[in-house]
Amino acid sequence: MASSVCSPRHSLFLSSSTKSPLRDCPVRFPACNAFHSRRRLVSATRLKVSASSPAPAVDHSPSRAASRAPTVVEVDLGNRSYPIYIGSGLLDQPELLQRHIHGKRVIVVTNTTVAPLYLDKTVSALTDGNPNVSVESVILPDGEQFKNMENLMRIFDKSIESRLDRRCTFVALGGGVIGDMCGYAAASYLRGVNFIQIPTTVMAQVDSSVGGKTGINHPLGKNMIGAFYQPQCVLVDTDTLNTLPDRELASGLAEVIKYGLIRDAEFFEWQEKNMPSLLARDPSAFAYAIKRSCENKAEVVSLDEKESGLRATLNLGHTFGHAIETGVGYGQWLHGEAVAAGTVMAVDMSHHLGWIDDLLAQRVGNILKEAKLPNAPPKTMTVKMFKSIMAVDKKVADGRLRLILLKGPLGNCVFTGDYDKKALDETLNAFCKS
Amino acid sequence: MASSVCSPRHSLFLSSSTKSPLRDCPVRFPACNAFHSRRRLVSATRLKVSASSPAPAVDHSPSRAASRAPTVVEVDLGNRSYPIYIGSGLLDQPELLQRHIHGKRVIVVTNTTVAPLYLDKTVSALTDGNPNVSVESVILPDGEQFKNMENLMRIFDKSIESRLDRRCTFVALGGGVIGDMCGYAAASYLRGVNFIQIPTTVMAQVDSSVGGKTGINHPLGKNMIGAFYQPQCVLVDTDTLNTLPDRELASGLAEVIKYGLIRDAEFFEWQEKNMPSLLARDPSAFAYAIKRSCENKAEVVSLDEKESGLRATLNLGHTFGHAIETGVGYGQWLHGEAVAAGTVMAVDMSHHLGWIDDLLAQRVGNILKEAKLPNAPPKTMTVKMFKSIMAVDKKVADGRLRLILLKGPLGNCVFTGDYDKKALDETLNAFCKS
Repeated sequence: MASSVCSPRHSLFLSSSTKSPLRDCPVRFPACNAFHSRRRLVSATRLKVSASSPAPAVDHSPSRAASRAPTVVEVDLGNRSYPIYIGSGLLDQPELLQRHIHGKRVIVVTNTTVAPLYLDKTVSALTDGNPNVSVESVILPDGEQFKNMENLMRIFDKSIESRLDRRCTFVALGGGVIGDMCGYAAASYLRGVNFIQIPTTVMAQVDSSVGGKTGINHPLGKNMIGAFYQPQCVLVDTDTLNTLPDRELASGLAEVIKYGLIRDAEFFEWQEKNMPSLLARDPSAFAYAIKRSCENKAEVVSLDEKESGLRATLNLGHTFGHAIETGVGYGQWLHGEAVAAGTVMAVDMSHHLGWIDDLLAQRVGNILKEAKLPNAPPKTMTVKMFKSIMAVDKKVADGRLRLILLKGPLGNCVFTGDYDKKALDETLNAFCKS
Repeated sequence: MASSVCSPRHSLFLSSSTKSPLRDCPVRFPACNAFHSRRRLVSATRLKVSASSPAPAVDHSPSRAASRAPTVVEVDLGNRSYPIYIGSGLLDQPELLQRHIHGKRVIVVTNTTVAPLYLDKTVSALTDGNPNVSVESVILPDGEQFKNMENLMRIFDKSIESRLDRRCTFVALGGGVIGDMCGYAAASYLRGVNFIQIPTTVMAQVDSSVGGKTGINHPLGKNMIGAFYQPQCVLVDTDTLNTLPDRELASGLAEVIKYGLIRDAEFFEWQEKNMPSLLARDPSAFAYAIKRSCENKAEVVSLDEKESGLRATLNLGHTFGHAIETGVGYGQWLHGEAVAAGTVMAVDMSHHLGWIDDLLAQRVGNILKEAKLPNAPPKTMTVKMFKSIMAVDKKVADGRLRLILLKGPLGNCVFTGDYDKKALDETLNAFCKS
C-alpha cells in the first residue's frame, strides 16, 4: 500500500492492508455444489408467494446438524458490545434469543411480507420454555416508501396501548426498512428500551442490522431523522434467505461487493470467483459472505461508532444512491440497486480523477453486472436532481459535499471533500441529462 | 439520618446528608429589598403583552456590572460535560454563546410568545462579531399541547429545507416545551447535531434545560417519545424572567421546592423564609434559587444520567402530575401546577404510609400555598383516570408502578414500588371521585 492521503484536512485514506488479521482464507466452491443449491433453493423461494404454504423440509443430515452451532462475530463497543449470531436454523434455538430479552414484554415489529413467513416462528423462539414472556406485534406495510413518521407512530401507538414499560424489548423482524424503523422506535420509546435485530434479507444481514444506525426518511432526504442505537444482539438465521425474492437477494449483494472495494481486496477476489454460487444461494457461500461482511462492518463500527470519519467509507455509492432513491421516489428502486448504480458513478468519478486504473473500473462494472445489478441511474434522474438532493446529504459539512471514492489499488478508498469538482460534473453528465 | 431502606430490591433511599459539600450558605433577604424588586419587576412583566414595547432600561450601576460575570455550574458527564451559565445580561455577552457554536449554521427554535421578546437579541448574540454564522429560526405555537410529532416535524422540515448539515447547531430559546422538542430534534436530526439551551422560564432554568431529557408527548402519555441528549451549554439569562407571567413563575417554583424536599433540607428552609422575595422576583433571591437548583440537578444527573435509579427522585409529584396533564388535556394546567398538586398527593401518600410526620406534611402544604400553587388535582380527575394514565408511566417496571415518596426527616425520599397499595388508594380517594 503505497498511496498517500491527498489532503490531511479533508481526507481519510483506508487500505485493506491495515485490517486486523482476523480474516478467514477465501473459499472456492465447486460448480456442482452451486448447481444443487440452486435447484433446492429456487424451489424454496416460491414459498414466499403464499403464507399458508408448508415450510421447506428440514434437512437432518450430519452436515446440517453441525451447521446449527452459530458463528459469532462480536461488535466491540465497550459496555455496548454485542454478538452477531450467524447460522442455519437459529430461530429454532430459543435460548439464543431469550438470553437477550429484558423484562417480560416483547414487541415484534415486522411487515406484511415477512409476518406470514416468520412471525409465528419468532414468537415461538421468544416464548418456548419461557411462558412468562408475552409478545405483541406490529405489522407494517412492506417497502422503503413506508419508512416514515406515520409508520413510526404506529409502533409507538401499539407500544403505549399495550402498556409496554422500560423493561420491554423491541424486536425487528425483517429487512433494512424494518430494522431502521424498529431501532429508531426502540431508541426513542421512553427514551430508550432494549432492542434485538432479526434480519431476514441479505441487505439487512450483511449491513443494515449491524452498527446501530437507525432512522426514517424525510420526503426531502433518506435517513435524515434517526439515532445511533445499538442492539443487544443480531440474529442472522440464514434459512430466511430461502424465501427471499431474487431481486432482493441481488440488492443485498451490492453491500457485499462494497466491503471488498473499500477495504478487503481478498474478499472482492473471492466474490469474483464465487458470484455464481451466491446467486444460486449456496448456503456455505452465503454463510461465508455474511460472516466476512459482518466482520468488516463490526471492525469499522468498533473503530468509529458515530461516523466521525472511517465509518463514512461504508457509504461508497450511497450518496449517489440515496439521491436516486429520493429522486425516483422511495420504494421504486431497492436500496442495493440504487447503491450499485451509485457505486458505478463513484468509480467513474474516481477514474476521472485519475485515482484508479482502467482495469479496476472494469472489474467493478463486471461484478455488478454478474450480480444482476444496475450499472447506471434511471433515465429520469437529471444532473440538477442529483445536485439538489445531494446538497442535503448527511456527509455535507460546512457546505462541502464529501464523497467516498476509490483511490489506489483494489481495497483502498478515501472519504474526502477535496476533489476537482469538474470530475463530479463529468460523471453526472456522463450518466444523465442536464 | 437514621432512616433505613424499606426494600433493598425495589427502593432507593436518599438523604440530604449525603450531598457533596458544595452548597452555599442560605441567604435571607430583607423585606425592603423584596418590596423594591416587586415594584420594578412587576412593571417589566407588562412588556410581555406587546412585542413592540421598548426593552426595560438597563441598569448601569456597579452592582449590575458586577452581576454580568456568570455563575458557572458544571454538569460532570465525562466527555459530555457542560457548563450552565447563570446571570443577568448574559444574552449581551456574545462570546459566551459563540464558544459553543459548531460550524457556520444555526437554527433557533422558539415560540410565538418568546420570539418577539428575545429572538433578535439571541440572533445578535450568535452573530455579533461573527459574520460567518447564519441563523435560521422556527417559531412554534406556545403551549404543552403543541409538544407533539406535528411540531417536531416542523423543525425537521425547516432544517432540511435550509440544508443544515451535521456541523450545524440547534438552539432552544424558550421554556420546557421548546427545550424538550428542540433537544429531541437535535438528537434525531442527521442522527444527532450540536445543541444549546437558552431557557427563559423558571421551570426551564431550574430543571428541564439541565440533564439532557428531551422528547415529545403522545396523546396517551407525557414525554413517551424522546432521547437522553446533552446540550453543549445552558445559558440562563435571569433578565428573561422580567417578562414571565406570574402563573409561569409560580409553576417553576414547584420544581425549586422539589429539590428541597427530596435532597436539600437547608434549601427548603431557605425557601420557607424567602418565598416572598421569590414571588417579588428579587434578582438576588432568584439567582441563588436557580444556582442551588442547578447544583442539585447537576449532581443527580452526573451520578445517574440515564435514570437507572437516583435520577428518578427528581420526579417527586410528577407521576400524579403527568396524569393530571394528560387527563385534563395538555396545556390546560401548567407543568409546575400539576407537579404541585402531584407533590401534595405524594406527600399525602407518604403520610398515610407513616413514613413522614404531620409537621412535614403541613410544611409542604404551606409552602405550595404561599407560592400560589394548587394543593389538589382538578375536580375532573377521577380515581379511574389516575390509575389508567399512571399505568403507562415510564417508571412502571414489569407492571409495578414505582413512586417517589418522602420518608424520614425533611430532605429524604425513596424511589420504590414496594409500598402498601392501600395507601395509594386512600390518597386517590381523598383527592378525587372514583
